[in-house]
Amino acid sequence: MEGTQSSSREHQAIREVVESWAAAVRRKDFEAILKNHSSDIVMFDVPPPIQSKGIEAYKTTWDLFFSCSGDSVIFDINTMTIFADKEIAFVIALMHCTEPGPGGERKGLDFRLTIGLQKIDDQWTIVHEHHSVPASE
Amino acid sequence: MEGTQSSSREHQAIREVVESWAAAVRRKDFEAILKNHSSDIVMFDVPPPIQSKGIEAYKTTWDLFFSCSGDSVIFDINTMTIFADKEIAFVIALMHCTEPGPGGERKGLDFRLTIGLQKIDDQWTIVHEHHSVPASE
Repeated sequence: MEGTQSSSREHQAIREVVESWAAAVRRKDFEAILKNHSSDIVMFDVPPPIQSKGIEAYKTTWDLFFSCSGDSVIFDINTMTIFADKEIAFVIALMHCTEPGPGGERKGLDFRLTIGLQKIDDQWTIVHEHHSVPASE
Repeated sequence: MEGTQSSSREHQAIREVVESWAAAVRRKDFEAILKNHSSDIVMFDVPPPIQSKGIEAYKTTWDLFFSCSGDSVIFDINTMTIFADKEIAFVIALMHCTEPGPGGERKGLDFRLTIGLQKIDDQWTIVHEHHSVPASE
């Protein structure tokens, strides 16, 4: 979406929220990971369960991720497209991380990510994340 | 999101787009499935590939779905939450369909769905769908 200067500002603000969140994941910095998230977030994660509702359940999904991610966390945004209005936005991204291989080595994992945001008290806030990989045959 | 009358109207319009799309899937009615979709749609589907870009690739994902769905298509919206501004919206849903079981019988499949919408020429238009199931262990 190309748009007005106002739209450009919103895009830039959203890009910063998403990039600072991904950087916080790489540092395993829980406070920064949760900084711009709603207490009512609905998380659809790569592993089960089918959904995690609320910030405490969301935080737990990162405990599981870090238990599988090794010491040096890979969590890269390969591509990101932002759709933003004044109060509602969503982001489509292709991501890259690693997972444990069968012999304990690290192996790369490409995954899809959709993020839903709402502006709350003049701050773009993540209210939804949907992470997934295609189903295996 | 509760909001103004304008917001209510947008929510109702979006609900109708999503419900009429799901009903079209149940009828295997391709014309109605594609009716409110962008030519540039980005689809993250349950089966591979990791993404399908553009309306022709999107249509192909439904050929695959119908080849696995049996004669009587199940495609139900269990829950749906709408976040909408004037021009941008997204929808979080839990869905139910069926897939072939190991002996050829039908078995139920719960999945997650996030839909991204943009108002184009005064019509809510689907620009993104992300369908997934949690990854198996």
